[in-house]
Amino acid sequence: MTVDQTMEVADSAVTDRYPTRMGESPRWVRRTDPTVWAGNDGPMTVPELRAHDRAGYTVVPEAFAAEEILRLRAEVSRLADDPALRGDERVVRERGTGAVRSIFEVHRVSPVIAGLVADDRIVGRARQLLGSDVYIHQSRVNLMPGFEGTGFYWHSDFETWHAEDGLPRPRAVSCSIALTDNLPYNGALMVLPGSHRTFVPCVGHTPEQNYRTSLVQQQVGVPSRRDVEALVAEHGIEQFTGSAGSALWFDSNIMHGSGSNVTPHPRSNIFLVFNSVDNAPGEPFAAGAPRPEFIAARTAEPVR
Amino acid sequence: MTVDQTMEVADSAVTDRYPTRMGESPRWVRRTDPTVWAGNDGPMTVPELRAHDRAGYTVVPEAFAAEEILRLRAEVSRLADDPALRGDERVVRERGTGAVRSIFEVHRVSPVIAGLVADDRIVGRARQLLGSDVYIHQSRVNLMPGFEGTGFYWHSDFETWHAEDGLPRPRAVSCSIALTDNLPYNGALMVLPGSHRTFVPCVGHTPEQNYRTSLVQQQVGVPSRRDVEALVAEHGIEQFTGSAGSALWFDSNIMHGSGSNVTPHPRSNIFLVFNSVDNAPGEPFAAGAPRPEFIAARTAEPVR
Repeated sequence: MTVDQTMEVADSAVTDRYPTRMGESPRWVRRTDPTVWAGNDGPMTVPELRAHDRAGYTVVPEAFAAEEILRLRAEVSRLADDPALRGDERVVRERGTGAVRSIFEVHRVSPVIAGLVADDRIVGRARQLLGSDVYIHQSRVNLMPGFEGTGFYWHSDFETWHAEDGLPRPRAVSCSIALTDNLPYNGALMVLPGSHRTFVPCVGHTPEQNYRTSLVQQQVGVPSRRDVEALVAEHGIEQFTGSAGSALWFDSNIMHGSGSNVTPHPRSNIFLVFNSVDNAPGEPFAAGAPRPEFIAARTAEPVR
Repeated sequence: MTVDQTMEVADSAVTDRYPTRMGESPRWVRRTDPTVWAGNDGPMTVPELRAHDRAGYTVVPEAFAAEEILRLRAEVSRLADDPALRGDERVVRERGTGAVRSIFEVHRVSPVIAGLVADDRIVGRARQLLGSDVYIHQSRVNLMPGFEGTGFYWHSDFETWHAEDGLPRPRAVSCSIALTDNLPYNGALMVLPGSHRTFVPCVGHTPEQNYRTSLVQQQVGVPSRRDVEALVAEHGIEQFTGSAGSALWFDSNIMHGSGSNVTPHPRSNIFLVFNSVDNAPGEPFAAGAPRPEFIAARTAEPVR
């Protein structure tokens, strides 16, 4: 039994299996936690679960019918224009133009999105993958407008959720529902299949209120170029393209990013992050204070 | 006979069929010049010529063998590192990092590239498309490095060559030879098929020495968003993806652009612009002085 394991037995709450933002030249950590947690019944078949375990993501084409997507798009347009949300800190805008880029805690803002979360096609899959009851750690709508979408650099969501929100383990999964067609050239999400099995610690330390800038452009909590090169060489790149209505489920620790969008075609998605109720947040592992509730829930209220 | 035609008969050198940068709210101009000019024998078949005429571009997969591409890549690497070219204004660098983005007049700088130009697979096609002897209006190597390639906004090359270099008509064709794989997600060129038949004038006026900044990021000589939206709605977007060694031939007036590259995969191409010797440059149509010789040749010396 190693020292690390002893510590864990002594005080599992304090053991940090995934140290990050501790200084320079960090070593990669092999993930010891599962990706697919044993569990409940649900909509995914055993081969689907195996594939998800291997790749770290699952694409569900036509997860929603055209009418459903039209209704969701109308709701998102309504929210983006809602005068009641002007100046709301849950609304993140593009640096240059002020166009709405994201709306956070959208399942609290909108009853329509709350209904989507509770839809068995969604929450059922999340429960099955995480092997427990689940709650929403974060929800948001991302609107990448035509011409000016600037993309997101490569990152693992879990790295931030661990460092800044205090999620102990990567027992969380994200669902991205495409509200517009994801084309190869309008900033579609890219994932590195299989990269979820490696935790890539980041250099530096978390500045205070890092979330205020990191949601527009991340500076801390991104891997080095050398790390990305090595991961791409090992895993390759898959781009998530597909019609409006398709859904992408991806592990909290998979390395992903997106390019810019110079086309007139906007790209909008609803992101729902489910965390296991058995993985509730504690103190941040590498930040002074947890991020605000609207970015990262502090209490694990199960979706019913 | 319209007034315009009378003027043309009276003084064809002065008639401007493609007015641009003359002020605000310009109207689109229907191109009256051919795309494929009657002419010589050459490597393209009649159906290929018809398709080029319709779409404004032609993709030639595996135009060059792997060994040839390796030789060209080695030559480009040599040039990018050549101390003799440091500080040379033909070398354009990325704004942030100083990485080499383009090397102009590369057929004069490198005997290897000069040989490529004179290769019958290249110059033969150019002669055939333009129906005359041809010369190099511009040559360059574009290096889009991994992680930091920022892309080019939508534009028609001819708009600039007409406004700033004085090419009377769109009787020019570009050949882009892929030195690296063009993937859907590393900033591959996008074209709007069929858009070459419409000349989209641009607003504003050309600043002095515009080329000094426009080669890094164009401010003048780009279409409005409304124009791009209308063109995309009419023509759609095609992305030029393909292995290293493939070639793209595209009309001087086709609307094209590219996105950013956040992947580690660099994207390098050799661009050769052929102009008809019967379309030699005159005074610029919308600029104070022509651009320097290394960006736009002033004399029509036919390729032999």
